[in-house]
Amino acid sequence: MEMPKPNPELLAIKPTLVKKLQGVLPLDAVIHEEAETRAYECDALTAYRCPPLAAVLPRNTEEVAAVLKICHDMGVPVVPRGAGTSLAGGSLPTADSVILGVARMNEVLETDYDNRFIRVQTGRTNLSVSGAVEEEDFFYAPDPSSQLACAISGNIAMNSGGAHCLKYGVTTNNLLGVTMVQMDGTVVEIGGAHLDAGGLDLLGVICGSEGQLGVVTEATLRILRKPEGARPVLMGFDSNEVAGECVSDIMKAGVLPVAIEFMDRPCIRATEAFAGAGYPDCEALLIVEVEGSDAEITEQLDKILAIARSHNPVELRESTSADESARIWLGRKSAFGAMGQINDYMCLDGTIPVNQLPYVLRRIGEMSAEYGLGVGNVFHAGDGNMHPLILFNANKPGDLEKCEAFGADILNLCVEVGGCLTGEHGVGIEKRDLMVNQFTPEDMEAQMAVKDVFDPKWLLNPAKVFPLATSETRRIAAE
Amino acid sequence: MEMPKPNPELLAIKPTLVKKLQGVLPLDAVIHEEAETRAYECDALTAYRCPPLAAVLPRNTEEVAAVLKICHDMGVPVVPRGAGTSLAGGSLPTADSVILGVARMNEVLETDYDNRFIRVQTGRTNLSVSGAVEEEDFFYAPDPSSQLACAISGNIAMNSGGAHCLKYGVTTNNLLGVTMVQMDGTVVEIGGAHLDAGGLDLLGVICGSEGQLGVVTEATLRILRKPEGARPVLMGFDSNEVAGECVSDIMKAGVLPVAIEFMDRPCIRATEAFAGAGYPDCEALLIVEVEGSDAEITEQLDKILAIARSHNPVELRESTSADESARIWLGRKSAFGAMGQINDYMCLDGTIPVNQLPYVLRRIGEMSAEYGLGVGNVFHAGDGNMHPLILFNANKPGDLEKCEAFGADILNLCVEVGGCLTGEHGVGIEKRDLMVNQFTPEDMEAQMAVKDVFDPKWLLNPAKVFPLATSETRRIAAE
Repeated sequence: MEMPKPNPELLAIKPTLVKKLQGVLPLDAVIHEEAETRAYECDALTAYRCPPLAAVLPRNTEEVAAVLKICHDMGVPVVPRGAGTSLAGGSLPTADSVILGVARMNEVLETDYDNRFIRVQTGRTNLSVSGAVEEEDFFYAPDPSSQLACAISGNIAMNSGGAHCLKYGVTTNNLLGVTMVQMDGTVVEIGGAHLDAGGLDLLGVICGSEGQLGVVTEATLRILRKPEGARPVLMGFDSNEVAGECVSDIMKAGVLPVAIEFMDRPCIRATEAFAGAGYPDCEALLIVEVEGSDAEITEQLDKILAIARSHNPVELRESTSADESARIWLGRKSAFGAMGQINDYMCLDGTIPVNQLPYVLRRIGEMSAEYGLGVGNVFHAGDGNMHPLILFNANKPGDLEKCEAFGADILNLCVEVGGCLTGEHGVGIEKRDLMVNQFTPEDMEAQMAVKDVFDPKWLLNPAKVFPLATSETRRIAAE
Repeated sequence: MEMPKPNPELLAIKPTLVKKLQGVLPLDAVIHEEAETRAYECDALTAYRCPPLAAVLPRNTEEVAAVLKICHDMGVPVVPRGAGTSLAGGSLPTADSVILGVARMNEVLETDYDNRFIRVQTGRTNLSVSGAVEEEDFFYAPDPSSQLACAISGNIAMNSGGAHCLKYGVTTNNLLGVTMVQMDGTVVEIGGAHLDAGGLDLLGVICGSEGQLGVVTEATLRILRKPEGARPVLMGFDSNEVAGECVSDIMKAGVLPVAIEFMDRPCIRATEAFAGAGYPDCEALLIVEVEGSDAEITEQLDKILAIARSHNPVELRESTSADESARIWLGRKSAFGAMGQINDYMCLDGTIPVNQLPYVLRRIGEMSAEYGLGVGNVFHAGDGNMHPLILFNANKPGDLEKCEAFGADILNLCVEVGGCLTGEHGVGIEKRDLMVNQFTPEDMEAQMAVKDVFDPKWLLNPAKVFPLATSETRRIAAE
């Protein structure tokens, strides 16, 4: 991926910039030595790297506002960063930008069980939000695979999902309000702890805006009562098509499992070798989990098992104990790690209509043969959110480029069948050039015009979301 | 409510405008005779009336685009109108504006049961969306009281809710995508039939934007499988406080009824006299409904009844038949009509944190005594969405103004306790001047800057949402 050329004027003013930043932050919160800025050179899309001009670690909204105002006035681009777990390069620095990391902003500001919300600083990790309300038997629903590490700020930026979002919705369905600092330092409150808001509801456009509109410093999140129990079923099928049809039939029947996870043979084999979860050696595997009281679980599972049986499964294993449940999930949770043991991989993220699963899986298989690159599929099938993992060799010249081309083909296929370029990872740098395949020029103009409003100088999170040439033209025009 | 003075230049160009509109629409789709434009002089907030310059009834996106382009080029304001059921004056014309009605746009464009969506033209009524998928046992969840009449376009404009939205969410949670025409005639596609979208998610800000950003002509809506069954329980309490506490406890327990409706004594009495539903004569009444299979219903109701019993209800009646269920709902559904038999009323709409219900109901009672105007409360208690009905006499000079002042006090109280000005009816003209009590100047500026993007000349739905002086200043500055 091409990155914009650094502006030599910005590189030249670094000493002045650092001094100003040190004027509003503690000394140890301004990182500017080259050896230290390297810690921020990439996120989880590790194929691309670039150390920033500097990195800052503010502690609260006021410090964020002070930093942004300085950068705004000096014309310095800012890349907001949560925990740096983006798989789409969403927090990749440019050489002339300042990384604004929220890692020190992790306090719980308010918990309200009567009205079922929690307000936190957005540097707090996803899992520790649930941790903060666990004693009262509540939890925060969206559960990205990286939930131990990823920050709420990043979840909001990317509208993150997770295995259990089939039932509970993704971040945007669980976010009630935010405090956001605009690039010029203005602080705005959007939404709140209540239903609806009056006036224009800006919360939806902030959620998923990938740091293009502002830096979200505080968030009010919906918390839910923990279900009494949960039980998974493992289903094995002898073809991806049949497994896909089973998913489609479950969704159509009106049962709403909390999760429907899908793994194909390459992932099953890799996972089994790595974690030994006792998965059957078959073409496709589903984990379907339901929640509730014992009676509710039994009733829902009866329906689901009847649907599964009508598709002639090669395996149908209902968990009978907590141990067995843990083992069923162990394989799924180890899948990314297991694939990583075999090879370098690039994890894609696209969404398709659920009834297109069989067709899309078959086409991915065909493309895999054409490109000569292996691919494993492990994903959230219930809402059609696919995660093909393309295997490549990072040390083999040309392999990364081939992998990128294969990935682009898959994502364009998602758009073709009526789906879209991303489910939960966002566009970042990874998919910015594919945006034109999903959106018309008029659609793109509407999005960029909203960006103009919040960040008229185009300083926030440069080189992401929009095609590079387009956003560079827009930025230069604004100068 | 003050309305802007009509611009004499616009009144003067009416003949040219009508001719141009007739050039792009069938003759009977351009309504301009004064006797006929009167049909569009008000919506359901009938206290305010003003016939428009003209009204047009296009049949599709192309005709909407042609109309908007003409009005845009001539600088004529446009007021989009669904079925005209707005209780907030959301489609009230100004004297120099054109009403753009979507009544002729009511086709079903696509139904897809596998992927659970329906695409319709937005003039289609809410109930007939469910009607179109009923045969396959599906339904569209949001159910405003006016669902027999109200149009999807208005539901999207106001982010409408309904009694059953506690479980299923309001319009924004059931809207997947829209085709929207901007004021200059540009057509954009926002969202789609898939999860997430990539780029800036503009769908959230379009939903609830009250016709300020564009005219939504087509919508892709989530449809759901009908539940197997539903069962309501009627609960009577001897104080509003105790009923409020019961609601709060049910929500806190983690059970999710599909509806929790609340009525206070004035509404109970009026309703009983009008509909004879067999309600007990008590201070406060709750209807709590749960859905699912028989086993699920029984299990959920057991928990809910236990909570209710701990609050010493004066009545606790679980429905045992379809007839009894219908009778329990009959009273609730007749409540607005029953109150209307007694008096003129203004129906307010504000949202509060659920645990503030007892306090807010007590304060409303006190204010009712101070103003000397009766008030009845009938509302969606589970999500804190209140609908106080203030009784007044439209023929008594000064009563409307007193009613407006009382209403403003109630809505400001909602904001004070951490809630907001609207739950599902929107701001319209009714609450535009109260916006400054909920939003800071920075918050308002962020909203208006987004309006600038989509409608730079401020021609769409004038005099709504923002304080009149503010929006007029903005419009004049744009000229």
